[in-house]
Amino acid sequence: MINMYDVIIIGAGAAGMTAGLYTSRKNLKTLIISMDVGGQTSIPSRIENYPGFEEVNGYELMTKFQTQAMKWGAEMITGKVVKVDKKGDGFKVDLIDKTSYEARAIILAFGKTPLSLGIPGEDKFMGKGVSTCVTCDAPLYKDKTVAVVGGGNSALGGAWELSSLAKKIYLIHRRDEFRGDEAEVDRVKKQDNIDLVLSHVPIEVKGNQFVEGLVVEDVNTKKQKTLEVDGVFVEIGFKVDSDFIGHLVKRNEQNEIISNQNCETSEPGIFACGDVSNVAFKQTVISAGEGAKAALQCYHYLSGAKGKVSIDWDH
Amino acid sequence: MINMYDVIIIGAGAAGMTAGLYTSRKNLKTLIISMDVGGQTSIPSRIENYPGFEEVNGYELMTKFQTQAMKWGAEMITGKVVKVDKKGDGFKVDLIDKTSYEARAIILAFGKTPLSLGIPGEDKFMGKGVSTCVTCDAPLYKDKTVAVVGGGNSALGGAWELSSLAKKIYLIHRRDEFRGDEAEVDRVKKQDNIDLVLSHVPIEVKGNQFVEGLVVEDVNTKKQKTLEVDGVFVEIGFKVDSDFIGHLVKRNEQNEIISNQNCETSEPGIFACGDVSNVAFKQTVISAGEGAKAALQCYHYLSGAKGKVSIDWDH
Repeated sequence: MINMYDVIIIGAGAAGMTAGLYTSRKNLKTLIISMDVGGQTSIPSRIENYPGFEEVNGYELMTKFQTQAMKWGAEMITGKVVKVDKKGDGFKVDLIDKTSYEARAIILAFGKTPLSLGIPGEDKFMGKGVSTCVTCDAPLYKDKTVAVVGGGNSALGGAWELSSLAKKIYLIHRRDEFRGDEAEVDRVKKQDNIDLVLSHVPIEVKGNQFVEGLVVEDVNTKKQKTLEVDGVFVEIGFKVDSDFIGHLVKRNEQNEIISNQNCETSEPGIFACGDVSNVAFKQTVISAGEGAKAALQCYHYLSGAKGKVSIDWDH
Repeated sequence: MINMYDVIIIGAGAAGMTAGLYTSRKNLKTLIISMDVGGQTSIPSRIENYPGFEEVNGYELMTKFQTQAMKWGAEMITGKVVKVDKKGDGFKVDLIDKTSYEARAIILAFGKTPLSLGIPGEDKFMGKGVSTCVTCDAPLYKDKTVAVVGGGNSALGGAWELSSLAKKIYLIHRRDEFRGDEAEVDRVKKQDNIDLVLSHVPIEVKGNQFVEGLVVEDVNTKKQKTLEVDGVFVEIGFKVDSDFIGHLVKRNEQNEIISNQNCETSEPGIFACGDVSNVAFKQTVISAGEGAKAALQCYHYLSGAKGKVSIDWDH
């Protein structure tokens, strides 16, 4: 049959690419389908916590992952999956361009998507001063003033990265302390041109052709003020677009796909790994490890050997 | 107090080193105690399934892990831990040389030790044709002849996996029947290119630069013969030296430390990751991912944040 694989991996970030490396090395005919290459890891310009690389560009690291998976035989296509259904003993995967592929097993590794603030002006100025990618757009703000919104490592890392280029950075967070790594918090606090605007939320992005200001509100006093900025970086978190698979696998309240220690989902033959799963921590090295687990458990499943762990989904 | 740390990590393989990288980046005062550097990963001369490196020497990779962890502040000492006990709100760790260290939390990452045959040539050709990991090294033996030693599921599964790649596999077992699962035994027996060499024990690994042969002896007749092979996979099991911590954490029948999805053990403040834990797959990238998880969960614990997952140990 045409377009038939042993395993289809949906997503090509750290988890999907590592899964593809491992299934290929097990001689499983593997297809990786993804809208992009590299996922979240490909965005940061500098990664310092993927073991083996003291410092590496995210896109460069993900290109290495891809080369390695393809070297062992994994095929890769660009496409958006709109539907997955059971068919015979396996699954059928439909893409938005009306093409279909079939496989005996599926590995879900499509990660998560950045969240938006949902405030006036955000959409209007997207790409005209509003950005969700510091790495992509930082060079546009040399010697300018920008706002970074968020309190986690992406916001802290983004502010830090911008501080060597931009004149001034406002780091805006709704709480009175950050939730990112101590090391990230410390170096941001020490940086003279980063101004912490804590306990404030963004209300509106203002401008004419391009962004000219960001209105923020004190969460306690409700007092508003306008920060004169040339750019706004939104770094507040992510959502998981898993509705197309919701009829087949159990999900939690964040739409993450519930999986056990061996990446098994509630549906035999479907595995989940990385940011799309309910794994507690979203890190490149953790996603890579989970990708390897999903692949090895998938191999057990396809070779008819019983896996070591199985969730009893009825309890 | 002298010798006081936030966290002591026991073991310096992929799991321990990655844990040290992550705890250091969280500004936790970190001490890594280990008998060696690099653990199992440091043995193979060529690793092709750690994502980011198409091909890397195991020892070289582990040196990179070490450099990176120490760059962020992790301290490391060589030593053998003989005792861990609770003390106050934390733990006291005693070494064989009578020195002691204290910490608020412990990460167990001391791995496992493959059982060896104890025959001439085995150590000499380790990483040069002798391997203890089929998943890691099988692809090196495409169209070659190999021996697999052992009678349990790892040996059977290893022989099966190799049979789709290698030209011929000798499966050597000291008894006249296998102790693995029926299903595993059946499919191995049906495979044309797997030659069963039962009631034989390995006597010597021979070769020059790399393995060239394995001498085996019939356990009944004592007659010896030399099998011409390019590789020898020793799959006779592992041991986990966890007795020194057995009074504090729950273990399974293999002496692996039972831990949940977030690397928590049955003892609050003690985390386990990598091969020493009950994680199903023993792979460098998986151990690295688990090390990062253990460190992040440990950070949650020490900073008073409640982890996302907790095993209910009474059920």
